[in-house]
Amino acid sequence: MAVYQNTIEISTRGKGTYEFTDRVIRELEKSELSAGAVTVFCRHTSCSLVIMENADRSARTDLEQWMERLVPENDPHFEHTMEGPDDMPSHIKMALTRTTEVIPFSGSRLMLGTWQGVFLWEHRSSSHTRSIVISIQGE
Amino acid sequence: MAVYQNTIEISTRGKGTYEFTDRVIRELEKSELSAGAVTVFCRHTSCSLVIMENADRSARTDLEQWMERLVPENDPHFEHTMEGPDDMPSHIKMALTRTTEVIPFSGSRLMLGTWQGVFLWEHRSSSHTRSIVISIQGE
Amino acid sequence: MAVYQNTIEISTRGKGTYEFTDRVIRELEKSELSAGAVTVFCRHTSCSLVIMENADRSARTDLEQWMERLVPENDPHFEHTMEGPDDMPSHIKMALTRTTEVIPFSGSRLMLGTWQGVFLWEHRSSSHTRSIVISIQGE
Repeated sequence: MAVYQNTIEISTRGKGTYEFTDRVIRELEKSELSAGAVTVFCRHTSCSLVIMENADRSARTDLEQWMERLVPENDPHFEHTMEGPDDMPSHIKMALTRTTEVIPFSGSRLMLGTWQGVFLWEHRSSSHTRSIVISIQGE
Repeated sequence: MAVYQNTIEISTRGKGTYEFTDRVIRELEKSELSAGAVTVFCRHTSCSLVIMENADRSARTDLEQWMERLVPENDPHFEHTMEGPDDMPSHIKMALTRTTEVIPFSGSRLMLGTWQGVFLWEHRSSSHTRSIVISIQGE
Repeated sequence: MAVYQNTIEISTRGKGTYEFTDRVIRELEKSELSAGAVTVFCRHTSCSLVIMENADRSARTDLEQWMERLVPENDPHFEHTMEGPDDMPSHIKMALTRTTEVIPFSGSRLMLGTWQGVFLWEHRSSSHTRSIVISIQGE
């Protein structure tokens, strides 16, 4: 059993889902481990993670827009508005999705399902550089 | 430290929560490990996982129906409708719940609370065979 | 590679988020491990976990109140009402947030982002003693 860890950066250009499955696979290859689990950890509270269908773009667009309707900007109840109208909705969307995903691997391959991809979900309107920890434990 | 992994199949018969705590326990027994953590990973994007009260069935019924009201079928905003009216709500419900659960174990026993059970939450209307990875790391 | 585990108790005084990042750090120090991942597991179905901004209290207040509006008490659809009006909303709020968080560590330090704190989110109105498992695997 061994631990391999690396922190990667992902550039975002406004609200939306950004797939980085290939980056996770690359880290798994670099680890040279064959069986275990990859922890993907998002080091922010205004973006989050989701494992979502990566085949048809419209599925993600519908998901993103549904969430936008559930947590709209400019909710008059919000007091935390000093960081912009997209900040408080970002924290809520983050809390409703995930900060951590743990994905098993076997035979040096991620055990994702056929249609699953790993996505960073950016909830802020402007461009950001996001930091994601990839921590792999296995043998 | 060692890794034990197995993929199990769970048959579903339409929308609802299906407990499989006993299947996780069985895999833990087969692993012969005594302390560590079990990763339960759902290989689909139209069903999900949740650890929920397993005592009173009405609690789960209320949870399921509340979610159905939050994410109803036939939302006129949806564009991703080719796979049926239950498909897009399935992805949204999945994103709002969990793809991964990680449960510690000690003395060869899962450290679940008294009322906690592990459930597959099927979001599609028809019957499916769902694939769940159980990846156990420990000593 | 080794496993360190401890169960900690957190006292809550009604609905709200309670930070316990310092308790997780203390367990990590006791483990004497330098690299790996900490699994934080909530052994209840009427409270949950969230990793949230810990700088400005108003961000958490807005999050808590938004969730209260999304899942209000006394929804006439609920059948599971015998444990009080706050019980069924508690289970729903739990299902929408997290039971497990997995946080990587390196150089004996949690790899949390600058603004991230680990919180227990109490969804019940009365005081409770909550049991959280800290399971650390690493080297």
